[in-house]
Amino acid sequence: MKIDVLFYPEKLKNVEDKVVVVLDVLRATTTIATALAAGAKEVYPVSSIREAFSLKKKIPGALVGGERGGIKVPGFDLGNSPLEYQNLSGKTIILSSTNGTKALTKASQAKNLIAGSIINAKAVANYLGRLNLDVIFLPSGTDFQFSLEDFAGAGYIISLLAQQKKIYLSDQAFVSLKLAQNNSPEEVLTRSFHGQRLINLGFQKDVEYCASLNLLDVVPVGRVSEGRLVIESSRLFR
Amino acid sequence: MKIDVLFYPEKLKNVEDKVVVVLDVLRATTTIATALAAGAKEVYPVSSIREAFSLKKKIPGALVGGERGGIKVPGFDLGNSPLEYQNLSGKTIILSSTNGTKALTKASQAKNLIAGSIINAKAVANYLGRLNLDVIFLPSGTDFQFSLEDFAGAGYIISLLAQQKKIYLSDQAFVSLKLAQNNSPEEVLTRSFHGQRLINLGFQKDVEYCASLNLLDVVPVGRVSEGRLVIESSRLFR
Repeated sequence: MKIDVLFYPEKLKNVEDKVVVVLDVLRATTTIATALAAGAKEVYPVSSIREAFSLKKKIPGALVGGERGGIKVPGFDLGNSPLEYQNLSGKTIILSSTNGTKALTKASQAKNLIAGSIINAKAVANYLGRLNLDVIFLPSGTDFQFSLEDFAGAGYIISLLAQQKKIYLSDQAFVSLKLAQNNSPEEVLTRSFHGQRLINLGFQKDVEYCASLNLLDVVPVGRVSEGRLVIESSRLFR
Repeated sequence: MKIDVLFYPEKLKNVEDKVVVVLDVLRATTTIATALAAGAKEVYPVSSIREAFSLKKKIPGALVGGERGGIKVPGFDLGNSPLEYQNLSGKTIILSSTNGTKALTKASQAKNLIAGSIINAKAVANYLGRLNLDVIFLPSGTDFQFSLEDFAGAGYIISLLAQQKKIYLSDQAFVSLKLAQNNSPEEVLTRSFHGQRLINLGFQKDVEYCASLNLLDVVPVGRVSEGRLVIESSRLFR
């Protein structure tokens, strides 16, 4: 298995035959994993607030969640704090976030699309091991800003994957793995630019939660349905 | 002092008021440091082979060196192996290399331009400490390929700078420092994509030399003279 980790989403291309793991550790992909583990049937990541409200009208009982600038959107049922996503049995979630949704949408044509995070690192690693195909990790970041927590998140998953498979690392994947091996998730998330911003907004508990390695067993996988990306819990491998 | 490390040269912009350290550890900036330490008066980095020959005609006694695809250019006096650059007292060197020259040229408008490498990491760190200004490290890489050895090279310099100044690291600089703190130059250069390519071309000794931390005391600094970038040994700080 060849493993690559990108620094920025804009470097992603020709994904049709590839396994892509999208990470937005703070907080979209952590929230997606949490919602599915809390029983949600599916999560629709959408880019715009308008699209979120429009889709909610079409799906009776759907809950709409998300943030802009870290803050819950007015009129939404939920924010982007994973701690809000509890007891969602059978629910459809529509999630609009700043960067995670964009990266997921960018990777939606991948052969296999997985939403990765630190909280489900081991489950994702096991899933990748069973797929046994080359993998590209895609930190969400923003167009011009590197996302330390997503880059390290890839490293924690790679570290767990390396325990079960022979893997070949690109130079970028090597850096990501070394970062993960020498720094705890708490350390990385707390010092990251984005982590600092969330802590300053009052989301210290979110940051701690997002750093909880291997807390959940869920593997969120994406597929395109009627032209729209939808993420569900994989029932294939656990 | 705020410290940033870029992943790719194309992210560099607005350098007029900035201190920029360009790295092409394998091998252009190592070769430049070696040539200056061996007594060369100045090094002109040029992009094209044609430009190299044209400049040689204008400077009596100048030596022209460089590579394409790792191999010495036919008709050049020297290759890009730093080990060839010995006993150059008073000589002018014209150096054309694939990526290092492009990155140096891209940064030529910087307030202060320094050619950094592992071999002179401590001298560069001391120089930066005396300048006492924010610093951007610029790995040469290629447009679409990350340069592990240059990214780590920045980390070794930052590690030495941190011993003498209070510094503030961007998330990218943090990753670079952590990489350098947990991996030796030999380890990094030997495993890097570019290092492997040079070893396969028979340049194992070059790779070992380029990994020799703090062997030289020279600080190559750039200035634009008659529209052309020229690199000389700094006589200001040692």
